[in-house]
Amino acid sequence: MKLQLALDSVWSKSLEILRSVISYIDIIEIGTPLIYREGMLAVQRLRASYPEAVILADLKIIDAGEGEATIAFEAGCDIVTVLGVAHDVTVRGAVAAARYFKKSIVADLIQVPDPVLRARQLLNMGCDYLCVHTAHDLSREYSRSIAVVQHMRDALPDAPLAVAGGIGPTLISEIAALNPEIIVVGSAITAASDPETAARMLRRRMDAHAHS
Amino acid sequence: MKLQLALDSVWSKSLEILRSVISYIDIIEIGTPLIYREGMLAVQRLRASYPEAVILADLKIIDAGEGEATIAFEAGCDIVTVLGVAHDVTVRGAVAAARYFKKSIVADLIQVPDPVLRARQLLNMGCDYLCVHTAHDLSREYSRSIAVVQHMRDALPDAPLAVAGGIGPTLISEIAALNPEIIVVGSAITAASDPETAARMLRRRMDAHAHS
Repeated sequence: MKLQLALDSVWSKSLEILRSVISYIDIIEIGTPLIYREGMLAVQRLRASYPEAVILADLKIIDAGEGEATIAFEAGCDIVTVLGVAHDVTVRGAVAAARYFKKSIVADLIQVPDPVLRARQLLNMGCDYLCVHTAHDLSREYSRSIAVVQHMRDALPDAPLAVAGGIGPTLISEIAALNPEIIVVGSAITAASDPETAARMLRRRMDAHAHS
Repeated sequence: MKLQLALDSVWSKSLEILRSVISYIDIIEIGTPLIYREGMLAVQRLRASYPEAVILADLKIIDAGEGEATIAFEAGCDIVTVLGVAHDVTVRGAVAAARYFKKSIVADLIQVPDPVLRARQLLNMGCDYLCVHTAHDLSREYSRSIAVVQHMRDALPDAPLAVAGGIGPTLISEIAALNPEIIVVGSAITAASDPETAARMLRRRMDAHAHS
C-alpha cells in the first residue's frame, strides 16, 4: 500500500513541506492547482531534487488524451491522471502515451455516474489504477467515501484502487482496511501544524492495517 | 460575434502566431496543453504583451471551483472554463470567483450527456457562456457539431453560446449563421501555412454572416 502526498499549495511552501515528509511518502502528486500555477516547471524541479521519486501529475485529462499525457511524461512524470468521464478515445490516447513511455495512468472516477461499470471499462482500456475521488467541493461527504470504496472493492476485488479526498487520521485506518493500492493524502499533511508528525502518524496507521 | 483563438502549441510558436493575427482576434485562449506546459506564466506574459486583450484560460475545472478559478483570475485572466460535468458545488464556486473578480465563466459541455438540460442548469447557476465543444479526440465528428449547435440554439434561443472544435473555412459560415457569441478557432489558424491570411479569411466569413 502506497502513500501519495498531494501538493496543492504554492510552490515554495509545497517544497518545504515535502522535504520534511519525503521519507514517509511513496508518490509525490503535483496537484491540479499547482499545475495550473507552475506548469511542467514544477515537475522538472521536483525531478531535479528527487531523481528517484515517483511523480504523479494530476492533469485530469478530458480531451487530447495522447498529446496531453505526453506533455507530462516528457517532463518526467511517472503517472498521469485522466478523467473517467472522458470519452473512450481520450482514455485510450492517454493509455497509449503511457505504454509508449512505459509509465502509468490513473483514471479518476470523480463525477462518474456509475463507477463500477465505468471502472470495468477503464481497466479494459488499460488504465493502471482507478481513483475513488471525493471532490474537495463535496467535503461534507468525505465520510461517505468509505462506503463507495467498499462497494468498489466488493464489485472489483482485484482492481488496483487509489482513494482520494479528505483522508486524515479518522479515515485512513478504515480505508487501509479495504486494501487500496494507493491512499492519497493532502491537507491532513500539508495543512498540519507539524507536517512531519502528521505524515509519520498516518503512515503508521496505514501500515498497521496493511499487515493485519 | 467574437473570434477566439485557441493557442495550444509550445509557447514561442504560439506567441509568434498570435502577433501576426492579433488584429482579427477578440479573445486569446490559453489552451489546456499550454497551461499544462507553462502554468500561469503564460497568462502573465500575455497580459504584459497585450494589456487590453481579453484572455481566456481553458482550465476545464472539475473540482475546487472557487480556488482554481481564483488562480487564473489573480494571474490576469478575464474568462475561465469549468466543465459542465462538474458538480453543481464546483460550478457555483467558479462562478463565485468570477463575480468576485468581475470576470466570466464559460461552461464547457464536453461529455455532458444531456447538453440542453445541463445548459439550463449552468445558466441558472450564473455561467456566462455555454461552450458546445466537439472533442479534439473525436475529430471525425466535427461536422456533427452544426447539428448540436442548431439543437442548442432551438432549445435555448437566447443562450450565449461558444462553439469549439475543428472549426475552419468549411464550418465557420454555417456556425456563424447560428449566431453564437463566440467562435473558437485553433489549428485552422495556428497550423495554417499562413496564419495571417487564414485568420483574415475566417474573420471575413464570420462577419459576413453576422451582418446578414
